Amino acid sequence: MNNAEKAEKILGNLVRAVDMLQNCAEFSLLMPEVRVNLVYALPKARTADEVAAVDGRITVVQGLPHASGLPRWGASDHMARLIIEVRKYDPAINAGINFKCDATVIEVAKKYCAEKSLSFGWIDRTREPAEVAEKDRSSMPWKIKQLVTSSGGVPRLFYEGEGWGKEPLFVALGTDAVEVVNIAIEIARRYQHRLS
Amino acid sequence: MNNAEKAEKILGNLVRAVDMLQNCAEFSLLMPEVRVNLVYALPKARTADEVAAVDGRITVVQGLPHASGLPRWGASDHMARLIIEVRKYDPAINAGINFKCDATVIEVAKKYCAEKSLSFGWIDRTREPAEVAEKDRSSMPWKIKQLVTSSGGVPRLFYEGEGWGKEPLFVALGTDAVEVVNIAIEIARRYQHRLS
Amino acid sequence: MNNAEKAEKILGNLVRAVDMLQNCAEFSLLMPEVRVNLVYALPKARTADEVAAVDGRITVVQGLPHASGLPRWGASDHMARLIIEVRKYDPAINAGINFKCDATVIEVAKKYCAEKSLSFGWIDRTREPAEVAEKDRSSMPWKIKQLVTSSGGVPRLFYEGEGWGKEPLFVALGTDAVEVVNIAIEIARRYQHRLS
Amino acid sequence: MNNAEKAEKILGNLVRAVDMLQNCAEFSLLMPEVRVNLVYALPKARTADEVAAVDGRITVVQGLPHASGLPRWGASDHMARLIIEVRKYDPAINAGINFKCDATVIEVAKKYCAEKSLSFGWIDRTREPAEVAEKDRSSMPWKIKQLVTSSGGVPRLFYEGEGWGKEPLFVALGTDAVEVVNIAIEIARRYQHRLS
Repeated sequence: MNNAEKAEKILGNLVRAVDMLQNCAEFSLLMPEVRVNLVYALPKARTADEVAAVDGRITVVQGLPHASGLPRWGASDHMARLIIEVRKYDPAINAGINFKCDATVIEVAKKYCAEKSLSFGWIDRTREPAEVAEKDRSSMPWKIKQLVTSSGGVPRLFYEGEGWGKEPLFVALGTDAVEVVNIAIEIARRYQHRLS
Repeated sequence: MNNAEKAEKILGNLVRAVDMLQNCAEFSLLMPEVRVNLVYALPKARTADEVAAVDGRITVVQGLPHASGLPRWGASDHMARLIIEVRKYDPAINAGINFKCDATVIEVAKKYCAEKSLSFGWIDRTREPAEVAEKDRSSMPWKIKQLVTSSGGVPRLFYEGEGWGKEPLFVALGTDAVEVVNIAIEIARRYQHRLS
Repeated sequence: MNNAEKAEKILGNLVRAVDMLQNCAEFSLLMPEVRVNLVYALPKARTADEVAAVDGRITVVQGLPHASGLPRWGASDHMARLIIEVRKYDPAINAGINFKCDATVIEVAKKYCAEKSLSFGWIDRTREPAEVAEKDRSSMPWKIKQLVTSSGGVPRLFYEGEGWGKEPLFVALGTDAVEVVNIAIEIARRYQHRLS
Repeated sequence: MNNAEKAEKILGNLVRAVDMLQNCAEFSLLMPEVRVNLVYALPKARTADEVAAVDGRITVVQGLPHASGLPRWGASDHMARLIIEVRKYDPAINAGINFKCDATVIEVAKKYCAEKSLSFGWIDRTREPAEVAEKDRSSMPWKIKQLVTSSGGVPRLFYEGEGWGKEPLFVALGTDAVEVVNIAIEIARRYQHRLS
């Protein structure tokens, strides 16, 4: 497969993953204030333009998850930079999705990881040095380093605790968009079960 | 006009206001991480179900502001509660919109208010007592009281500084949705002019 | 109510009507090839710009009726001209919706009208004189005159038989958008019942 | 590439093609009453479920072409059957798009084909035998046979003249969705130029 073929395959994998999310009503329960993005990077992506994401993010309309636009290169900034940084430690990671983090989601996610033998981690933003937090865009390398160090590698599921001006968020990582959406859907179903 | 007629007029005013936003490319520059909501309350609204808002919020798709869904009763929680609380101090307020807050937006908004003789205010979340912040949904009455006290009334334009786990945000208030969107669009145009 | 208030009330009534349609899965069965439009005219509308309609029409997405855009003035041409023409005979009509026409829908609609004591009619396009059909936009006055003459007034539900280059279509008429959507939804439910 | 990879590549190619259309304002001028579909078939597709298409078709919102939903398997019936039938004569064809047909588009398309050395054709529905037209779904094999016979092969651009109850329509065919959209966009630009 050449690069153009790889790029099309990535957009198509995102379409499949978005379709799965749009048919999962339970995932609405995991909608964070910042809304959800789902990203998938080209093999050697160095900038956000080489990472495809859902244009306008995924929100909730009429009670169901809803992609605002089509998958598009450069449609994500934060999640794109996260994937690019994570790959410096684990090049097998290509895709990620973020979702809501609260005490119950943490419990559900930990149990899920234990059952599936998936690695679990978290980023403690209270430990972030002031000089890192103050400088725009210098947080990501610090955060991923802290995550990898504390987890002994790149975990497939982790959360970033709340920070000053920052909502806490969960992130699932994997080799493609369908894989990370399958994790998010499973967490959503278990979370709904816990709430009901 | 009876209540059913008032309710339809509110939905229609929101449609007009959303149409204005969707045609204002500059407003994309004011998109906050949590996306934008635009709300308009029934005269004696006491719950979020009596406040109409854009279902799924307003996001940016293909570089332009884009309403995810139609205006719908109960489609907002946070902004709806804000309007209900604000009206305890100023019953002339029916509608509100939130947008991005940074140092430049603050400058632009202050200057705009000075020129238009509009009141300007801000909520300092660093002063929020721990017992208020910890109890879910008890923040709003505290915040609005602090805002009204420090501003000497309900300001038409104010921002809420960043908090623990909370993005800083601007809010414009007014008698209807078209009025608050006109303010937001004017700020967006001046902001773009400042950036370019 | 002044004109601006009437205009907002019309947009809001369309929002309510679209919301009803979007929650009615059965209506997908009545989707015609040309898709559905729903229109509502200002009291003295003379041009399509004074008739509000769903921008981009209503289509079917993920198996459910879906409005492509917001209600907007001038968003319909054909249905807008139909309403304007119909009002020359019955000024009580302000709104209309079109939907699929086949032998079964005709049966269902006739029975519905008989039960509800609503007038029923049809336009026989095979009788359209060649000189009318050939001249662009001269068909509408002829069609509505034929409809009113053959029905003894403006019927609330009628169909237009197929023509050369024209899909056959049903139209429901009424005083507002919610009223005509209620008729369309009831036909859709009875149609589904007949098919199953 | 295995079948799953081919399927993802097809969805991704449709995303690229839709993105091109959504950024081409001129294409709005070619919007037919039945709206546009864009389809891409799996190598050995035998049913519409093996053909991907834009869910809800492509319509015009705020003056711009707008995909109602994501590309999805089985989202088209008519265009999917057309591609399947066409391939019996030319297996190199995988994708197609339909658009408006009028006397000016016919002229523009013919000239375009002459310049680009592309084959041009048309289906004369007035020749369709009554027994074919009456039997649901028996038209397609007859139409494509008539097209191939009269054109001496499968033309890359053709129109289907108006029929009883049928809008006349243009169709562009090619090896993938991006290719057929490039043809449609070029016709749209030349058409706009002719109109202005």
